[in-house]
Amino acid sequence: MRLFVKPAVLGLAAALLAGTTLAQDMPNPAIKARQSVMALRGFELGILGAMAKGDVPYDAEVAAKAAGNLVLLSQLDLSAMWPEGTDNSAASGTRALPDIWSNFDDVAAKAGILNEAALELQAAAGTDLESMKAAMGNLGAACTACHKAYRAPAS
Amino acid sequence: MRLFVKPAVLGLAAALLAGTTLAQDMPNPAIKARQSVMALRGFELGILGAMAKGDVPYDAEVAAKAAGNLVLLSQLDLSAMWPEGTDNSAASGTRALPDIWSNFDDVAAKAGILNEAALELQAAAGTDLESMKAAMGNLGAACTACHKAYRAPAS
Repeated sequence: MRLFVKPAVLGLAAALLAGTTLAQDMPNPAIKARQSVMALRGFELGILGAMAKGDVPYDAEVAAKAAGNLVLLSQLDLSAMWPEGTDNSAASGTRALPDIWSNFDDVAAKAGILNEAALELQAAAGTDLESMKAAMGNLGAACTACHKAYRAPAS
Repeated sequence: MRLFVKPAVLGLAAALLAGTTLAQDMPNPAIKARQSVMALRGFELGILGAMAKGDVPYDAEVAAKAAGNLVLLSQLDLSAMWPEGTDNSAASGTRALPDIWSNFDDVAAKAGILNEAALELQAAAGTDLESMKAAMGNLGAACTACHKAYRAPAS
């Protein structure tokens, strides 16, 4: 057995090792993308939530814009953001449960309910505070239904 | 002058100081939201770019979905994501130049051009590879026009 290894080979091995580590540390683009969608939904809901809680005065125009954005965000085609192998047992930095991939029909149905709730919220948000709050309840329920079934608890 | 300070007061001061530091370290929600929009645009363009470069085979359906998402993303109302005080001279973690806030009309015009380019790309992406590539050029130019004028170079 030869123990002598040319420096160039060692350098290549080190580079490959570094590359592997780097690839593992890099967030998966699909995971990052779907988390960006969730972050945007959270941002828009935060605007509406602040009004619902009375932290900021109700503003019909601002509320309608936020709800309109939620509609657009619920209409995005997310299929490229959920490739096989990006569940929380196979990838890091995600709480997506493997059940998502064995229940795609149910996930799609839940996404449809979210889309309907967003459309209802869009109609209500610019009307008045009470209408908005009621519609937010339905949207929140749609969020929760999917998170409860398909997202691991925060560790 | 009394130099003696009750421990409870010191504790409160420490907590307030810690709170301040924490608030400064937390990314501004509006900055995080607009960066999420940019990340999503980048994700969709990455799908199209991989086909344009020949890294993956052209797939009309996948291309059309990505382009459709770019249209939705260009239709989002971003007004709540660009509040005063979130330029790169006032906030950390952003390359947004103060000029944005003194040239809102131009920014809006550039956003309009982006929206048109996304619509053209949507029509082209599902047609064939060459049409898609041509339309991507226009979209890329729209991205660059805004970044060149209003984004600080990467440090």
